[in-house]
Amino acid sequence: MIIVMKPNVSKEKIQDLKTKLNGRGIVVNLWEGEKYSVLGLLGDTSSINPSQIQADECVDKVLHVQEPYKKANRLFHPEDTIIKVGNEEIGSSKIAVMAGPCSVESEEQLIGIAERIKKSGAGFLRGGAFKPRTSPYSFQGMKEEGLNILKKAREITGLPIVTEIMSTKLVEKFVEDVDIIQVGARNMQNFDLLKELGRTKKTILLKRGLSATIEEFLMSAEYIMAGGNDNVILCERGIRTFETYTRNTLDLSAVPVIKKLSHLPIIIDPSHAGGMWWLVEPLAKAAVAVGADGLMIEVHNDPVNAKSDGAQSLKPEKFDSLMKSLRQVAKAVDKEI
Amino acid sequence: MIIVMKPNVSKEKIQDLKTKLNGRGIVVNLWEGEKYSVLGLLGDTSSINPSQIQADECVDKVLHVQEPYKKANRLFHPEDTIIKVGNEEIGSSKIAVMAGPCSVESEEQLIGIAERIKKSGAGFLRGGAFKPRTSPYSFQGMKEEGLNILKKAREITGLPIVTEIMSTKLVEKFVEDVDIIQVGARNMQNFDLLKELGRTKKTILLKRGLSATIEEFLMSAEYIMAGGNDNVILCERGIRTFETYTRNTLDLSAVPVIKKLSHLPIIIDPSHAGGMWWLVEPLAKAAVAVGADGLMIEVHNDPVNAKSDGAQSLKPEKFDSLMKSLRQVAKAVDKEI
Amino acid sequence: MIIVMKPNVSKEKIQDLKTKLNGRGIVVNLWEGEKYSVLGLLGDTSSINPSQIQADECVDKVLHVQEPYKKANRLFHPEDTIIKVGNEEIGSSKIAVMAGPCSVESEEQLIGIAERIKKSGAGFLRGGAFKPRTSPYSFQGMKEEGLNILKKAREITGLPIVTEIMSTKLVEKFVEDVDIIQVGARNMQNFDLLKELGRTKKTILLKRGLSATIEEFLMSAEYIMAGGNDNVILCERGIRTFETYTRNTLDLSAVPVIKKLSHLPIIIDPSHAGGMWWLVEPLAKAAVAVGADGLMIEVHNDPVNAKSDGAQSLKPEKFDSLMKSLRQVAKAVDKEI
Amino acid sequence: MIIVMKPNVSKEKIQDLKTKLNGRGIVVNLWEGEKYSVLGLLGDTSSINPSQIQADECVDKVLHVQEPYKKANRLFHPEDTIIKVGNEEIGSSKIAVMAGPCSVESEEQLIGIAERIKKSGAGFLRGGAFKPRTSPYSFQGMKEEGLNILKKAREITGLPIVTEIMSTKLVEKFVEDVDIIQVGARNMQNFDLLKELGRTKKTILLKRGLSATIEEFLMSAEYIMAGGNDNVILCERGIRTFETYTRNTLDLSAVPVIKKLSHLPIIIDPSHAGGMWWLVEPLAKAAVAVGADGLMIEVHNDPVNAKSDGAQSLKPEKFDSLMKSLRQVAKAVDKEI
Repeated sequence: MIIVMKPNVSKEKIQDLKTKLNGRGIVVNLWEGEKYSVLGLLGDTSSINPSQIQADECVDKVLHVQEPYKKANRLFHPEDTIIKVGNEEIGSSKIAVMAGPCSVESEEQLIGIAERIKKSGAGFLRGGAFKPRTSPYSFQGMKEEGLNILKKAREITGLPIVTEIMSTKLVEKFVEDVDIIQVGARNMQNFDLLKELGRTKKTILLKRGLSATIEEFLMSAEYIMAGGNDNVILCERGIRTFETYTRNTLDLSAVPVIKKLSHLPIIIDPSHAGGMWWLVEPLAKAAVAVGADGLMIEVHNDPVNAKSDGAQSLKPEKFDSLMKSLRQVAKAVDKEI
Repeated sequence: MIIVMKPNVSKEKIQDLKTKLNGRGIVVNLWEGEKYSVLGLLGDTSSINPSQIQADECVDKVLHVQEPYKKANRLFHPEDTIIKVGNEEIGSSKIAVMAGPCSVESEEQLIGIAERIKKSGAGFLRGGAFKPRTSPYSFQGMKEEGLNILKKAREITGLPIVTEIMSTKLVEKFVEDVDIIQVGARNMQNFDLLKELGRTKKTILLKRGLSATIEEFLMSAEYIMAGGNDNVILCERGIRTFETYTRNTLDLSAVPVIKKLSHLPIIIDPSHAGGMWWLVEPLAKAAVAVGADGLMIEVHNDPVNAKSDGAQSLKPEKFDSLMKSLRQVAKAVDKEI
Repeated sequence: MIIVMKPNVSKEKIQDLKTKLNGRGIVVNLWEGEKYSVLGLLGDTSSINPSQIQADECVDKVLHVQEPYKKANRLFHPEDTIIKVGNEEIGSSKIAVMAGPCSVESEEQLIGIAERIKKSGAGFLRGGAFKPRTSPYSFQGMKEEGLNILKKAREITGLPIVTEIMSTKLVEKFVEDVDIIQVGARNMQNFDLLKELGRTKKTILLKRGLSATIEEFLMSAEYIMAGGNDNVILCERGIRTFETYTRNTLDLSAVPVIKKLSHLPIIIDPSHAGGMWWLVEPLAKAAVAVGADGLMIEVHNDPVNAKSDGAQSLKPEKFDSLMKSLRQVAKAVDKEI
Repeated sequence: MIIVMKPNVSKEKIQDLKTKLNGRGIVVNLWEGEKYSVLGLLGDTSSINPSQIQADECVDKVLHVQEPYKKANRLFHPEDTIIKVGNEEIGSSKIAVMAGPCSVESEEQLIGIAERIKKSGAGFLRGGAFKPRTSPYSFQGMKEEGLNILKKAREITGLPIVTEIMSTKLVEKFVEDVDIIQVGARNMQNFDLLKELGRTKKTILLKRGLSATIEEFLMSAEYIMAGGNDNVILCERGIRTFETYTRNTLDLSAVPVIKKLSHLPIIIDPSHAGGMWWLVEPLAKAAVAVGADGLMIEVHNDPVNAKSDGAQSLKPEKFDSLMKSLRQVAKAVDKEI
């Protein structure tokens, strides 16, 4: 941590702060420039609250040298994390494809889609049973019944199931029923939920919040890991910017950046990012090319009658042809699908 | 709802969509332009899912005429809502001032601060018992013990207490213990929590999410109101933009905009918005001048030792002089503090 | 400047960089932490190009201690700059009010408005002769003819005139004709234009770019000042964010922040910020309360027939009543209008 | 254009507006809903100024049906535009690669780099002679001398040259000297410059502004085209968002969106987008996969001594290996490099 003092602060005041920090066992180096004096704090500064330092009227600013996340930090864990779910892996050279409808709507619908995507090569079935909707008057999901239908689809197809949790009250049920528990973008900083999921061993798919920085995203993963659960998959799904033509702005740079900062796998959701079905194919190809470990894609047999997100869902035949073209791109970057 | 068809779509396709919509009891007006055809849907379109319409390959775009919120909409409730909490009101010509430390840290600290802010004219005591922190390694609040200290401070000073809830599991306890339940910015779209709070009659202080549009903000209020709880106070606390000098960018335009769109009271939190104590006074004055119904201000007796948000906390003597200058501004806009 | 080396970089590499920097006359302090080594560069680092340092593969990041602007920096010029234009001042305790139509449309229109705003107490007449319009098919201004009308209005009313320049080719003409030359938001980083204006002594009103940070804004002022022209007035007019209800998001925090960082006067344009006439009054009041040195307000005698920006223009009678209420707010913060 | 009237506006007022619009030769359809009345304007509405409509106190909002750009609009020009420069094409199935240093620094440097990139397969040489820099104290480019060096490099290698213009005063010289004139992001809405370039027939490379929407970006292209110059190449180079880890956020969705809305070629600049050399390779691959028509990449023989943008420049050997891997990705999406 680097503390920049305000210009012209007296030597006594600087010494006071230095002494106070020394008293907490911190080694402090002092540099005195012409206008500014700077304190350099080396070693473990986790006992210090930066906001307290910033509250000192003699302090101009506090700069951070070290990243605040530890368990998610590649520095302390140089190898890529590969997460195993059933017979599938996420984080290896095989790109994980999670596909399915936005919402579970009926047994017939879900099983039909599950069989189609499996045939096309998807490794996981996604489908929402509990739906976070902007409007209280929109369809809120089939809830427990949806979970049962997901389980049936898994039984029939063998595909592991991914579905979103919205309530801490259902953590136990989700742990029992599903293979990957998704935390939605709007709950990325629902710390209460993250803590409860940290106490399980279940694989968590953590979506980036609409306005979360990469650092905050990794800090939310750290919440889960700090509780003892290392099975975290990150998912970039578009951030909110001034551009409104697309539903969100897909931040593909986040993939190489997160690969550099962290050892956790990162996948891309091109469906939510663009918000329109015809954007899914180009964005999915770009995601594979940029180095993502997986994709989450909305597929619906009948988009114009989908209960949610119809506009961004692919029909099964389009998904099938997408998988074919993704195989070419994957090969070009030494991966497979 | 206005549906713009893609250029050169056949008359049959347009007729098909019109028939389908008519089948749901919707009156559809058709305009045929040279390049574009447009369908105008009048009356109640709540039975239609815009995403399904958008999913139709013949549709270019869907434009909305009506606001999606009803109970929060001034159109259906033209008078200002005034919320009564104890002997205080929020939404009237008297500006509601909620002050206190970011976190409850001890009985002595909280009661000391409570007495000081009361003397300066604050009407409510704020203080966090459960703290949402970006890092799992930061102080997470005194929890239940913090609630007990808040209650003691209320007993001694008579000030109603405002504190943040993070877990649906504690709704019942909060309803019993506190006067105003705060929903933090990060939980603005924790719909599960909003629904549970909608089932109570307790006053809810809903903070705007870091990247929530005003429409989404009002939709979150609608979630609470849809459950039967009309006691919602809105709070603008800064949004996330590209500017990083300030912690967030305080969107003061939101006050007159929300006053136009909704009948709910709206207050401003200048402490979180700016993130630095010296910004609190100018921003608080501006908030009063722009027409806010109240202010939420962090006050701490010893900011350099505060467990959280020290940098943005005012000392009690500064808060006292702030209140004096706010009285002048309030008078200038025909209000009082 | 603080240089954070990558973890586990060899001592030799660190020494190499230190030696290289020493060779340029820079005193370098080295701190060696457990994981990270840090170089602290004191004194004048203006001979160093941070991008070159960042390009070194051993360097993790470069942090800045000092602000990059000098002439605009309050550190080196502690007193407020007060700019005199005719008999008026900008930056003193009297709030400067610049009012008038978006575009000059005719002699009759402009002189009519000028007389009205003068009577209401405005100190300056604004009006666009050359108009930057998003569309090439929109009205582009009356150009030279518009300048002549502005001069006639000045002759009649005595009000100094403010108008926007778009071309370096017209700098000489503007210097001769107008009192304050406005640089629009879209040209804030038109460095060629800034340099030419820096060579004059004319007062420049520099508007903040739609996505300019406060630091970049001050760097653009620095461009003008570096050329020898210290007469710069800054103008915040709303920044671009994800919120689309308002045309832009007015960043009122920028006023106290700029007052802290710089000695230059800063005014607010509430008309462009909100984009709607009914937002002008609350935002103008907030601007005065937050400490702005002036206001720029669009006034039009016939908004529904205005050639540009009708939706955000006040009618003269509304402007008159606005001025009356602003006087109250100004008084409350020890200023006058 | 769709005009939504305020709720409860009288029939007379609505009739007045309808009559006024009819008077301008516009066919107006009126729909009367329960709460809202809506006017639908069909046919050519270019004689109407939306801001005037919005200024009417009876009007709630104005919605747009048609895109405001014409010459850049794919609707009126369904085939892809392919631009020929020398023996190279931009917009065809061969991906155009423009490479070279950020700034021209010396003859030796530029010619050395030009020969290396040519050997690796680049089709164009980029290099800045006039440099837009945030600070007036940074290196501003070699100016005219830089242009001469660029011409020499073209003579030797045969590569067409691309360089940025900053001043309208130099349009004639640039037209004579260079092959593609670049308009930088900060000048995207320097309308004066766009108009002058519209009067030439030279190919223009127009970079997207840091906070320009896709619609505004196309409107700036329209400015050039409206003047009679159809040779416009668009370039996405990252937009400004809240994320600060990367210099900008590369908006790759803009590629398929612009392909849908316009017939103009669009290329990607991964160097400026990411701001760090190690991001160039993954982002360039993603750009090819998403369907971009070309790439603009910074290459420098000695990044740690580059006068600008060293941190984001590739060394020639890295550029060479990048070209090899891009060939694989191009092949996977049926293109070539």
